[in-house]
Amino acid sequence: MAEEQENVIYVGNKPPMNYVLAAITQLNSGVNQVAIKARGRAISRAVDVAEIVRRRFVTDAQIKDVKIYTEELTNEEGNKINVSCIEIYLARE
Amino acid sequence: MAEEQENVIYVGNKPPMNYVLAAITQLNSGVNQVAIKARGRAISRAVDVAEIVRRRFVTDAQIKDVKIYTEELTNEEGNKINVSCIEIYLARE
Repeated sequence: MAEEQENVIYVGNKPPMNYVLAAITQLNSGVNQVAIKARGRAISRAVDVAEIVRRRFVTDAQIKDVKIYTEELTNEEGNKINVSCIEIYLARE
Repeated sequence: MAEEQENVIYVGNKPPMNYVLAAITQLNSGVNQVAIKARGRAISRAVDVAEIVRRRFVTDAQIKDVKIYTEELTNEEGNKINVSCIEIYLARE
């Protein structure tokens, strides 16, 4: 696994605190930064995760960048669908 | 109403195309920029709106900045709750 991949938290449909814990662990591992990524409806949850980490647990962490973009996926019927994505970069000073 | 307020689209629970239309109108009004804002679960929809506008309708528009933050609200029982928010700044070149 590429080292870059290890710094990424993919936010899905689990409770936010699962991802919060993963992000805290990452930020305390010596890497000091993490990318929180999500697609579609999980985007709102990714923002919650970043904000909970920053405000409640790792108060010296800051949001360095937020990117939004669109990915084109192919569904089971073979149709192309567009899905919105977010990447939130959180880092300790 | 302050002039700044007129350049803001608040994304709620209506279908995304309602907000897309409002954003296109704003970007064609001579102002050339718009802020798309949302809270809570509507955050995903705000990202959809920005991406639809940029990719399908106003192709010379770019995402200039994305901010995420937390607002503290008081609910009907008088309890304070934290709500995640997003602001997406879209502008024509």
